[in-house]
Amino acid sequence: MFNLCLFGAGRIGTIHANCAAQNPDVQIKYVVDVFPQAADKVAKQLGATVVDVESALADPEIHAVIIASSTDTHADLIERSALAGKHIFCEKPVDLTVERVETCIRTVKENNVHCAIGFNRRFDPMFAELQQAVRNGQIGSTEIIQITSRDPSPPPAEYIKVSGGLFKDMMIHDFDMARWLLDEEPVEVFANGSCLVDATIGEAGDIDTALVTLKTASGKLCQISNSRRAVYGYDQRIEAFGSDGMLQVNNKLENGLVATGSQGTTTAKPQHFFLERYADAYRLELNNFIEVLRGNAKPLADEKDGLNALLLAEAALESFKTKKAVAVNLKG
Amino acid sequence: MFNLCLFGAGRIGTIHANCAAQNPDVQIKYVVDVFPQAADKVAKQLGATVVDVESALADPEIHAVIIASSTDTHADLIERSALAGKHIFCEKPVDLTVERVETCIRTVKENNVHCAIGFNRRFDPMFAELQQAVRNGQIGSTEIIQITSRDPSPPPAEYIKVSGGLFKDMMIHDFDMARWLLDEEPVEVFANGSCLVDATIGEAGDIDTALVTLKTASGKLCQISNSRRAVYGYDQRIEAFGSDGMLQVNNKLENGLVATGSQGTTTAKPQHFFLERYADAYRLELNNFIEVLRGNAKPLADEKDGLNALLLAEAALESFKTKKAVAVNLKG
Amino acid sequence: MFNLCLFGAGRIGTIHANCAAQNPDVQIKYVVDVFPQAADKVAKQLGATVVDVESALADPEIHAVIIASSTDTHADLIERSALAGKHIFCEKPVDLTVERVETCIRTVKENNVHCAIGFNRRFDPMFAELQQAVRNGQIGSTEIIQITSRDPSPPPAEYIKVSGGLFKDMMIHDFDMARWLLDEEPVEVFANGSCLVDATIGEAGDIDTALVTLKTASGKLCQISNSRRAVYGYDQRIEAFGSDGMLQVNNKLENGLVATGSQGTTTAKPQHFFLERYADAYRLELNNFIEVLRGNAKPLADEKDGLNALLLAEAALESFKTKKAVAVNLKG
Amino acid sequence: MFNLCLFGAGRIGTIHANCAAQNPDVQIKYVVDVFPQAADKVAKQLGATVVDVESALADPEIHAVIIASSTDTHADLIERSALAGKHIFCEKPVDLTVERVETCIRTVKENNVHCAIGFNRRFDPMFAELQQAVRNGQIGSTEIIQITSRDPSPPPAEYIKVSGGLFKDMMIHDFDMARWLLDEEPVEVFANGSCLVDATIGEAGDIDTALVTLKTASGKLCQISNSRRAVYGYDQRIEAFGSDGMLQVNNKLENGLVATGSQGTTTAKPQHFFLERYADAYRLELNNFIEVLRGNAKPLADEKDGLNALLLAEAALESFKTKKAVAVNLKG
Repeated sequence: MFNLCLFGAGRIGTIHANCAAQNPDVQIKYVVDVFPQAADKVAKQLGATVVDVESALADPEIHAVIIASSTDTHADLIERSALAGKHIFCEKPVDLTVERVETCIRTVKENNVHCAIGFNRRFDPMFAELQQAVRNGQIGSTEIIQITSRDPSPPPAEYIKVSGGLFKDMMIHDFDMARWLLDEEPVEVFANGSCLVDATIGEAGDIDTALVTLKTASGKLCQISNSRRAVYGYDQRIEAFGSDGMLQVNNKLENGLVATGSQGTTTAKPQHFFLERYADAYRLELNNFIEVLRGNAKPLADEKDGLNALLLAEAALESFKTKKAVAVNLKG
Repeated sequence: MFNLCLFGAGRIGTIHANCAAQNPDVQIKYVVDVFPQAADKVAKQLGATVVDVESALADPEIHAVIIASSTDTHADLIERSALAGKHIFCEKPVDLTVERVETCIRTVKENNVHCAIGFNRRFDPMFAELQQAVRNGQIGSTEIIQITSRDPSPPPAEYIKVSGGLFKDMMIHDFDMARWLLDEEPVEVFANGSCLVDATIGEAGDIDTALVTLKTASGKLCQISNSRRAVYGYDQRIEAFGSDGMLQVNNKLENGLVATGSQGTTTAKPQHFFLERYADAYRLELNNFIEVLRGNAKPLADEKDGLNALLLAEAALESFKTKKAVAVNLKG
Repeated sequence: MFNLCLFGAGRIGTIHANCAAQNPDVQIKYVVDVFPQAADKVAKQLGATVVDVESALADPEIHAVIIASSTDTHADLIERSALAGKHIFCEKPVDLTVERVETCIRTVKENNVHCAIGFNRRFDPMFAELQQAVRNGQIGSTEIIQITSRDPSPPPAEYIKVSGGLFKDMMIHDFDMARWLLDEEPVEVFANGSCLVDATIGEAGDIDTALVTLKTASGKLCQISNSRRAVYGYDQRIEAFGSDGMLQVNNKLENGLVATGSQGTTTAKPQHFFLERYADAYRLELNNFIEVLRGNAKPLADEKDGLNALLLAEAALESFKTKKAVAVNLKG
Repeated sequence: MFNLCLFGAGRIGTIHANCAAQNPDVQIKYVVDVFPQAADKVAKQLGATVVDVESALADPEIHAVIIASSTDTHADLIERSALAGKHIFCEKPVDLTVERVETCIRTVKENNVHCAIGFNRRFDPMFAELQQAVRNGQIGSTEIIQITSRDPSPPPAEYIKVSGGLFKDMMIHDFDMARWLLDEEPVEVFANGSCLVDATIGEAGDIDTALVTLKTASGKLCQISNSRRAVYGYDQRIEAFGSDGMLQVNNKLENGLVATGSQGTTTAKPQHFFLERYADAYRLELNNFIEVLRGNAKPLADEKDGLNALLLAEAALESFKTKKAVAVNLKG
């Protein structure tokens, strides 16, 4: 039996905790949240107790923590959990600054705990099949990866202000996918972007539409296309092109009906947003974490992956500002 | 808390019992099977006790039974369960003879229990969306239903001999879908068929390939196309055509990759067989049965639906033998 | 240089004549029509002269005739043309009665002329690829052919009255496709049908919706599904299923746009009707006829094919009336 | 009747001349080529006479010229034809240097002749529908254009050396499509690229794989993805994304068969290369040019479009070398 503590009783924390708790060997023992009401509600659902951070980490029966609190608390909780000898599952991003992430990595390493980072898309069955097929050589040598990632609608401007901006908040997932699929680290980043969707995003100093190009040392190329708004729903597609062909993953649709009428043939919209699209991925991600706790697996994405995605986001931001390609040196 | 008894610890029984047991209010209390080893194994998984039929039905704590034993035991178990006041979930078919099914219906009615029949396809989300859209008038007045239903490979000839034949064993599902989608009872059946797949099926007195045409009183038409063998997997498609357009449900594929190479563009095969294709349907079907026990729902398919599908199968068999369209008078 | 005479200056005749005339070796010398204005107009376009039947057939410079006049004149014109030693391209059907078609066949044979029948779908590139792939064994042994054929809207009731009815007028194309794809003659026909689209069609003694099942001596099965009305356009699909897999030809669409918006993803309607859908087929059909005149080819569909399709239509009509499967004995 | 002169009797020149000659009002009077045998052969097909440039341009009966000779002769022939008062259809590119193209533009303008440039893709029915739908506001305000353009296999290294390089030779078509679809001039270009397909291309100083990002003054973005090799054929896709949705044009396939077998479902490869894929476009392009000669139309792409595409290619080349975004100021 593994006892877990959940930090952050919001929407995504609840999802992670429920996914973990579906495992018969897992008990969510504690829930910690700055909002007592939220903590109470989730604790009741999970049969858990509401405590504070200190108490939770002081309990020797706690094997691991799920960190799903606000981004600015991630690094602190990672370090305190690591020092307490707890294994860690932390939502992305680790932190918005490279220095802080590097400190976390050292602490995690020194305390010999596992730290899985919530790059949930690696667990999506469709993308996992794509990655496996690329690794198996189905397209020969990979040459171009094309990632299209569009949200259904922009978050409120207040969120934008604390989000770290499009590259660190939204495209960070795509940077991680790019690294995972390219199977060779990017060495160069170019970013362009615009504020086309919501003027208040521009006023908050951010962009809502972006194109980024990555290049690896051997010359493999990757394009990432982001928008904060797609009227048809969550647009999550990847295309991998290589010397022997092309592999594509298209959107998952809301239903399977094909309707033909006087206006043509219509199929459903993509599933609306990440909760629907990545429901399987969230489940598999926590299953993987439980296997890590059992000693049967390593995290599919760990703290170094968190750092490397952030380094790409930093480089993209610099490129966007300077209008130059920016060299990056990721940490193997 | 609902206590259930499982009759039949084979593959499909285990699936139904597990689906039911995922509900926190449900306990599979007993497992009954003529093979003690099978019963023991499943009982251990479910935390249940192995007993005989009498003991199970004598226990006043048992609310309902799941009948998934061999076809020739269904009617008997339905009647005994009904007499004991237990609600019933029974795999299709109720029985291979109309008379026996009619007796069951009377007993079920007299004892005022619910009897859900395992026409799992009604619970498939894709077909349910299709049915709902047809009901909502999306294609206007329905004119032609086309059901394509092909198994990946034929069962052994020994199974064929006790199966009741293609119409009662395999097409019975399609007869039920036809009734459900037409929303008006068929009054006429024509069947043609051949033995093209496996000569031993012919030697067992059965066919493995069949086309059946149904007609309702108002003239709506339905085609059913069956084969016991499709090298590409379980082929489960439905097309509904009407005055305002057409709705189609295509196969669910094994994965979402689209691969383009020097041979063209390839997508995955259909999911292999019913366990994969209808995994969601089995889950939703048992959820519906639990809602029936709670008094919140009626069975989506009941004992009368079992009878009516059998009447269509009987008519198809007679039509196949006589080469004539056969009139049917279903029981509203 | 081949000099041709066109009988029938209507829409389809003009199409055939223009297709033939695109060939630099072909001159449409004469146009014959009971409506002088129609004849004049088409003759002017083609650089032809308007004459009567006698004059046209008496001209020794005429190599061949295109018969596209009303159905009730086909047989007579075939016979007169054959007696005059002219090769014949005749629109389907040859005639609405078997006896008359048999007389035509004898006359054609005795006069040693070619008689191509306008079963244009055999020339459609998509269906030709399908037929070739089936012949090449791509699906192993053919087991089920499914033909879906729906018109965009019903013809006027006056046309229905002289059309010979749905089986002889509309499904005759599908009977021909069935024979061509099955590669083995049907021996049994069952037909069902309804009047669901237009009550005036029923008042004219015809049906507008039909399902027909064919069976060959070796047990291969074919389903044909017809409707006189599909709000989304001309629905022309074929599926061939066999021991090694399935081949499908779907509709050709009006354009290639894929539009995704808040209502889902929409593609264009099928091409509206036969003039659009079979434009390539009409061209290739006449090219084939010119190659027949050059001695380089045989008609892909000839007078015997015309007879056999009619025999299937007759059997379907009898089956529809008697509600019995009807045996047929086609003429190899 | 319009008399035309063809400069360049190679493959593409022959195609253009044949497309023009299908118009009954057009006669290809002269063929000019440095290889007399090529000129003779094509002249014979077209019923034309082989002459030299001077004679052709001196003939007052010549209305227009088709320039399809080698790239290094285009500018010279444009100027001489313009000075002789002949309207011009010239294959892309006008020239590999901006200065020379600007001189051509002046000469064309001063002599008041039309100069159509062979950006054939504007005439492709599928892309034309896309452009029209974008113009009609079907996706609201355009935000991102994604152009994928891959050749089936790289040209020989000797061709690469005189081609002007990937940006001027291959991507020039995509730059033109980008301008046409964005409906607003790009002001900034970033290019990245690699030599991944054929090392001899790298040795010739060129790249074979490239990603380019364009940005307009209002912030609209465009991605272009090029490769000199796609094992599955000519990959020509465009996606336009905007505030109200997305429009996509996918590849045209070699045939319409959908084959399902034990390996999944396979559709045909894209049409092999430009001759197949753009056969309709070539025909419509020359039809447009004849309409220009008749005074009924303007060239859909003219000499300024030739210049602007070249300016984008120059900027891309500079960006690739400097690793910086390069500002461009196109000529309205």
